[in-house]
Amino acid sequence: MPINAERLLGDLRTLAKIGQFKTGVHRPAFSADDMAARAWFRDKLAEAGLDAGIDAVGNVYGRMKGVDQAVLVGSHTDTVPYGGWLDGALGVVYALEIARCIAESGAKGMGVDVVSFQDEEGTFLGFVGSCLFCGEDIGAAMAAAKGKDGTPLAEAMAAAGLTGRVTPQLDRKRHRAYFEAHIEQGPRLETGKIDIGAVTAIVGIKTFRVTFHGEANHAGTTPMALRRDAGAAALHFGVAVGEGIRHSGGPDTVWNVGSARFEPGVTNIVPSLAELVVQVRDVSPDVLAAIEPIVRSTAQECADRFRATVDIEPMLDMKPAAMAPALVDLIRKAADDLSASSVALPSGAGHDAQVLSRYVPSVMMFVPSIGGRSHHISENTSDADIVRGAEVLLRAVERFIAKT
Amino acid sequence: MPINAERLLGDLRTLAKIGQFKTGVHRPAFSADDMAARAWFRDKLAEAGLDAGIDAVGNVYGRMKGVDQAVLVGSHTDTVPYGGWLDGALGVVYALEIARCIAESGAKGMGVDVVSFQDEEGTFLGFVGSCLFCGEDIGAAMAAAKGKDGTPLAEAMAAAGLTGRVTPQLDRKRHRAYFEAHIEQGPRLETGKIDIGAVTAIVGIKTFRVTFHGEANHAGTTPMALRRDAGAAALHFGVAVGEGIRHSGGPDTVWNVGSARFEPGVTNIVPSLAELVVQVRDVSPDVLAAIEPIVRSTAQECADRFRATVDIEPMLDMKPAAMAPALVDLIRKAADDLSASSVALPSGAGHDAQVLSRYVPSVMMFVPSIGGRSHHISENTSDADIVRGAEVLLRAVERFIAKT
Repeated sequence: MPINAERLLGDLRTLAKIGQFKTGVHRPAFSADDMAARAWFRDKLAEAGLDAGIDAVGNVYGRMKGVDQAVLVGSHTDTVPYGGWLDGALGVVYALEIARCIAESGAKGMGVDVVSFQDEEGTFLGFVGSCLFCGEDIGAAMAAAKGKDGTPLAEAMAAAGLTGRVTPQLDRKRHRAYFEAHIEQGPRLETGKIDIGAVTAIVGIKTFRVTFHGEANHAGTTPMALRRDAGAAALHFGVAVGEGIRHSGGPDTVWNVGSARFEPGVTNIVPSLAELVVQVRDVSPDVLAAIEPIVRSTAQECADRFRATVDIEPMLDMKPAAMAPALVDLIRKAADDLSASSVALPSGAGHDAQVLSRYVPSVMMFVPSIGGRSHHISENTSDADIVRGAEVLLRAVERFIAKT
Repeated sequence: MPINAERLLGDLRTLAKIGQFKTGVHRPAFSADDMAARAWFRDKLAEAGLDAGIDAVGNVYGRMKGVDQAVLVGSHTDTVPYGGWLDGALGVVYALEIARCIAESGAKGMGVDVVSFQDEEGTFLGFVGSCLFCGEDIGAAMAAAKGKDGTPLAEAMAAAGLTGRVTPQLDRKRHRAYFEAHIEQGPRLETGKIDIGAVTAIVGIKTFRVTFHGEANHAGTTPMALRRDAGAAALHFGVAVGEGIRHSGGPDTVWNVGSARFEPGVTNIVPSLAELVVQVRDVSPDVLAAIEPIVRSTAQECADRFRATVDIEPMLDMKPAAMAPALVDLIRKAADDLSASSVALPSGAGHDAQVLSRYVPSVMMFVPSIGGRSHHISENTSDADIVRGAEVLLRAVERFIAKT
């Protein structure tokens, strides 16, 4: 019951042609190419003998026939704009191939169900597909969700022929576990020359928009001491908040100041407004809980120093999601079985597994990303690593079925 | 031969109606309202008995008849977008009123010529009017000059019916001195409750665009130590360069980081590019000469620390312009004559006087700005301060004529 490498790679390459952009793909959720990829995937699942359909938000779900229990395996087929060919696609094609392998072996009692969730990437509302699949009440978030250009989620769904009125399909009696494979999107496996990452937890994320308000003054005629300099406050905050987070965080805590905006943004005018967005990630709820006081006190000190005021707007607040330890073990044992090296590591990015983990034991498995690149058309993984990953994940699913 | 306060204030208020925007004015150089203000001013000069015209770049010049020598007095009537009613306008209406007073007194030998220069504010090319008036060869700069929206200067001139082919009118035999009055645009006079500022020098300005280049990476999956973080480099640079300038500068050195731009500017992506613009002003050429090495070494240290690279583009490099010490004295003596308090101070902003000072002894006189505000519709000066300023400037011109 081995992985059919040619079939696996062939399906990945066929999928990459839908919305192809140079060496990457452009399949934002609900776009025509996204929906075409979902229709293609549904047909592949049906061809594999699964009872397959697309739900009212665009999730593709294929149910193995003749079994009462199943390992749910999946990921997503939507992409960021002009993204890579493997982010999401790898996980769903692995799921398809594993379902085929398990079906070919004549599954009894427990089989494999396959899912491709909608809008994992947050083009309109991150994890909308997995949340609805699990029956979460996200009506308010859906009503408020808009794309970058202001298009409401409802409008995007309607254009794709979807109502959004999903009948939840997660069935805790049937679905005994959720497995999701993904490219690492970071450099740790490649740098360490390690084949497989067994994900222990998906980091929690806290994001704050920190806006300093000063006074626009002529930068030549206003003495330094008489300014209310929002820009200087923001620059000092950007440095000091990193030091504060480094100090209070753990060894794997990461943070980013990804955007900066000064108003009026003119060379010879003291900025009246300066806004930074700070994002912090860690797997520890305690580490994350300590972040907000650091952001607030640091921002206030910097505002005071430059006679500015500051507003702090908490934005994203996503709790860390622990993966099931027994399943993390299972991934590593499956790697051992196939003489693949492995490491336990956290996922620094969010994934649908964090939603599924609230309801069923869940785990993720990473394969190396060349150069750690992701969300870019240069994203890639060697064929050997792709095939090895599928073999390890299949082995893990087999082990799970065997012992459950 | 006193100032006619009613006539002075009336003319200022009439001029403020041309391009009026709320309590301010919007008369960007070469706009219809700018040209209308220039036509109005030419007519006022002609009405005052001067030989008045508008040259090929839009400078309004009025020559007093029957005299061989003249004090040139002026400023500009163009404004920044949605600017204040006094920036530039005060100086030209003072000049008009002083020319009227001197003419009414029956000038002999030395009179007063009046000028309103074009585009002092740099809507297309700062000081284009005064440079051409003085015969400077700025053809290359004019050919390259564009407005914020990309409109070439040549196109703006053509739309205003101007060719830009100016016959220089500065005449070193005739023009024995240049006097320019202006609102302070800063808080020093108001804060110190001082009536008159006698400007000793116009600061030099150095501006650098500092651009850090890193690598766009996922801010969750890329460990801090493996990033090439252009944003962090820029934030640290923004803080450190201020400390470096403070350390090496003098007590009146001022600097500003007025604009910041991160790319891709996304919350969860490590910035691949981060650009700050740093501007430094001082009256001392030595202080300014020390700035570029500080900017370069600080930027390189910050780039190295975050594995980024850095480009430094020197932009504006304007030399400090000393005002004529004898004329600075004259302004203060004129203030003393009228029991007005005065202080000698540098101008932190650029003015046409810095161009004129290359050719004729020049001086500037400041009156208080309420709240130090400028380049904003809330810019204002009390009527009493406006009238007192005109009286002091007239007195200074009279003293100059009397002793020359």
